Amino acid sequence: MSDLLYFEDLQPGQEFDLGSLTVTREEIIGFAEEFDPQPFHLEDAAGEASLLGGLAASGWHTGSLVMRLLAANLLNRTSGRGSPGISKLQWKQPVFPGDTLTARAEILETKNLRTKPDLGIAIFRITATKQNGSRVIHWENPILFAKREIA
Amino acid sequence: MSDLLYFEDLQPGQEFDLGSLTVTREEIIGFAEEFDPQPFHLEDAAGEASLLGGLAASGWHTGSLVMRLLAANLLNRTSGRGSPGISKLQWKQPVFPGDTLTARAEILETKNLRTKPDLGIAIFRITATKQNGSRVIHWENPILFAKREIA
Repeated sequence: MSDLLYFEDLQPGQEFDLGSLTVTREEIIGFAEEFDPQPFHLEDAAGEASLLGGLAASGWHTGSLVMRLLAANLLNRTSGRGSPGISKLQWKQPVFPGDTLTARAEILETKNLRTKPDLGIAIFRITATKQNGSRVIHWENPILFAKREIA
Repeated sequence: MSDLLYFEDLQPGQEFDLGSLTVTREEIIGFAEEFDPQPFHLEDAAGEASLLGGLAASGWHTGSLVMRLLAANLLNRTSGRGSPGISKLQWKQPVFPGDTLTARAEILETKNLRTKPDLGIAIFRITATKQNGSRVIHWENPILFAKREIA
């Protein structure tokens, strides 16, 4: 536990490599069947006829895949206590079967919480790119962290 | 197809009932294992010790469940063409096993797109409440729609 990152360890400008993953056709269709059954997320023909240009992942799927990288490769090594929301989320490019997403997190700002002195908040900007370097998604995310001095 | 809703049918102030669903413990843990493996989404003890007060759904899971209601009960009856992003998403209450979510969509604004005359954009506010009436999540979502006059 001694190398856990606490609120006191976090500063604006810090960047974290969140690693990569590759998404399959089966995962894209499976997620869409369960959570976003619009035709362009389910069928090749509908995807090709759409603005996406081919069968492409639900935006909620893309965000959830990047959340996996954020949780597994950063938050689970910290005193992270969850998040109250998301702002400024943009889907910049469709995600197709076989695409590899690489994600990063940057801290924009940190602040104490008046109402909860044992916690602080760090505002992260999360971004993911494809194998060709083009931006796929980004969003801003305030995340709560316990303070070392309390824990 | 004749009762499909096109951009011309959408106006600020319109509200849509998106229906309800109930989330199970198995779904909460399964989603967290795949997309958000933080302890308070995976284990009772960690959930009870957390700010959430019990094993609770990943916020990405809650959003994806409400997306299912939005896609199945509204967008798939329209000329919807996808969305470029999300803003002002807030998680207001944790979602526990057995909770029933009821969702609504309201149109805040509609506008033409200068660059794509065959499409318009409607900005929706999506909200979901629990069985006790308390707000669980809300966000704003611009969604593209084809125009009837073109289609």
